[in-house]
Amino acid sequence: MDYLKNMGSRAVSAARELNLLSEEAKNRALLVAADKLCEKSEAIIAANAKDVECAERAGMSPALIDRLRLDEARVISMADGLRQIAALASPLGEIVMETTRPNGLNICEKRVPIGVIGIIYESRPNVTADAFGLCFKTGNAVILRGGSDAINSNITIADTLRAAISECGICGDAIQLVTDTSRETVRELMRLNGYIDVLIPRGGAGLIKTVVETSTLPVIETGTGNCHIYVDESANLDMARDIIVNAKTQRLGVCNACESLVVHASVAERAVPIIVEALREKGVEIRGDERARAIVPDIKPALEIDWGREYLDAIISLKIVDGTDEAIAHINKYNTKHSEAIITENEENAEKFLAEIDAAAVYVNASTRFTDGFEFGFGAEIGISTQKLHARGPMGLCALTSTKYVIRGNGQTRG
Amino acid sequence: MDYLKNMGSRAVSAARELNLLSEEAKNRALLVAADKLCEKSEAIIAANAKDVECAERAGMSPALIDRLRLDEARVISMADGLRQIAALASPLGEIVMETTRPNGLNICEKRVPIGVIGIIYESRPNVTADAFGLCFKTGNAVILRGGSDAINSNITIADTLRAAISECGICGDAIQLVTDTSRETVRELMRLNGYIDVLIPRGGAGLIKTVVETSTLPVIETGTGNCHIYVDESANLDMARDIIVNAKTQRLGVCNACESLVVHASVAERAVPIIVEALREKGVEIRGDERARAIVPDIKPALEIDWGREYLDAIISLKIVDGTDEAIAHINKYNTKHSEAIITENEENAEKFLAEIDAAAVYVNASTRFTDGFEFGFGAEIGISTQKLHARGPMGLCALTSTKYVIRGNGQTRG
Repeated sequence: MDYLKNMGSRAVSAARELNLLSEEAKNRALLVAADKLCEKSEAIIAANAKDVECAERAGMSPALIDRLRLDEARVISMADGLRQIAALASPLGEIVMETTRPNGLNICEKRVPIGVIGIIYESRPNVTADAFGLCFKTGNAVILRGGSDAINSNITIADTLRAAISECGICGDAIQLVTDTSRETVRELMRLNGYIDVLIPRGGAGLIKTVVETSTLPVIETGTGNCHIYVDESANLDMARDIIVNAKTQRLGVCNACESLVVHASVAERAVPIIVEALREKGVEIRGDERARAIVPDIKPALEIDWGREYLDAIISLKIVDGTDEAIAHINKYNTKHSEAIITENEENAEKFLAEIDAAAVYVNASTRFTDGFEFGFGAEIGISTQKLHARGPMGLCALTSTKYVIRGNGQTRG
Repeated sequence: MDYLKNMGSRAVSAARELNLLSEEAKNRALLVAADKLCEKSEAIIAANAKDVECAERAGMSPALIDRLRLDEARVISMADGLRQIAALASPLGEIVMETTRPNGLNICEKRVPIGVIGIIYESRPNVTADAFGLCFKTGNAVILRGGSDAINSNITIADTLRAAISECGICGDAIQLVTDTSRETVRELMRLNGYIDVLIPRGGAGLIKTVVETSTLPVIETGTGNCHIYVDESANLDMARDIIVNAKTQRLGVCNACESLVVHASVAERAVPIIVEALREKGVEIRGDERARAIVPDIKPALEIDWGREYLDAIISLKIVDGTDEAIAHINKYNTKHSEAIITENEENAEKFLAEIDAAAVYVNASTRFTDGFEFGFGAEIGISTQKLHARGPMGLCALTSTKYVIRGNGQTRG
């Protein structure tokens, strides 16, 4: 615990220093950090090779090993990420609101850094550079706790980043990595109140759940997406098919992929065969309710458990409903409040869906795959919030800031 | 637990209904609720008398009994509060951001209700009407858990409000009161994930701490304020004295009252006697460090524990420092990040203080007592956030809303 409190105090001091740093100084340091990552790419790849070897010996799945593995191209892409962050406009200092009260007090709400941000993530080592870049750009010190699988990679990357900013005359404690990867230490990290202002978990549903249940710090929940597409009565079926294939298959293991289809009964006879055929061509397994199986008998039956599943795989569930109300009720019951779409040519149904669906992003006639900081034009993304406090949906730089009221008076007292 | 889950589901349904209600319908219902409170004032005061009698028998302090007690004037003031809320502009539907992407997608970030808000509070029964009004205005269902001391008052007030909105054709479950005031039930309430979107504790430091440590829901921390006033070298000492007396004594038991003074050594000889005399006239006890006691020997010594204390009483601590840097370091070490003020005629020191002090509200030449939703012109206040997520400082209606991305396309898929 002293280990973490010590890191915490150093992070608080570093955050105070970052808060006073100019925009230019931060951007310069990000560019130096990018160069250093490229320079050190051999050492980073060598450290990563140790992690990959351990993971292979431990029997990690090829998909996970692929997430863990770094090569020259991936290191360069980490460096490019930092350069892109340096080029973005900073939200710091923005005046959110200003007013002068009848008593003459001038009240100004300004955008400021949060302070110290904790990030807990899984096996992708590129998150180390990425999360550092976003936090540093917004004037926050960061305490990173990556997966134990990636510990050698993460140490090397974090050391490189520390050295780079130190070289620019900035306190290296702006980025600290928790190298003690024991369960007790991560548990204490989640309860480091007084040092960490916000904790952001990045990873699968299990990690998010553990953090939410254990942490006493303010948390931003990210990521799980049981996303639906509803094919309305009036849908253009070619459009529906293309959007569904894209949302399901363009990338399988992502939170904004479509996991469940809902089809209006009055178009089901025509729509379901077209959609099923297109998905099957892409190797997707379809699990349907009884009404869907009455149309396409050779699909698997959907069980109750399927409606709430985030497959992250080549599987999709399919339900037939009698109208927009039933579709909305079904989606609001089973969704994770991430991204939901309606395919329709009927404006009234579109507006009803947009108003009544409870989710971070609601779409008319577009793929759920667009829920993404880059696609939204934010230029960066720290994750996709599925909670309703602070930030909802894709989080760009602004989500890593807080505000402060600055009040100027000339002797005002309260009557 | 089934008791709470049942309340939770009913709150979720009510929230869906409120989300679709027009601004006019909500305002009308608030006015009816205000009238009903006045009509039922005898019953409310009778229920409250039972609570007061129990509290007196249990030996509750006169100050707390005063907070608990309702009379005709206080009931009318609750009703007026609802009428004022009805008259405010609603933040719902506000377009926070809108953009059309190169691929033609139109992305619009809209202000929407949060959904279900849980509020845990202590003995003031007026919070029941107040919290309902603010949540209802912003389209949120509310689950209230007031102090067990006020249970009879709260039941009568909540029943009156439920009856009023039901009479307007709105689901009464928009306001629900947890009448089982056992510790186990409040603990489960704090962990009612999937039903409650945000939990707001309103009360003393002990309550806030328990909620932060126990809750698995997103929490907005409110209220504790160890607020400082720093008298700089160049301060106008008459102004300093007036502001300090106001910030300390205008109301003792509130979070934005000043609890600690910091004085620049080079004006201490002149400033300290003036300030001490003015505070003593108001019956305030001063606890000073050694340097302060060298100037005014008959004040009590301040112990280390005094620097971190929120007295909420006629006591103040006093420290002498050698400059703005030391003042800032001292304040940032001991404050609760609520409200801090500098009294100075030196612009450079003022700007330094505003930039470097980590607090929700930072003042130049004004009393910390202004940190308040009404004083800031928000027209309402649900509490003062001392955390950095979502809302910081006084929270008006906007703090009770979330946002939603509404995306309109014409068949876009991701490449």
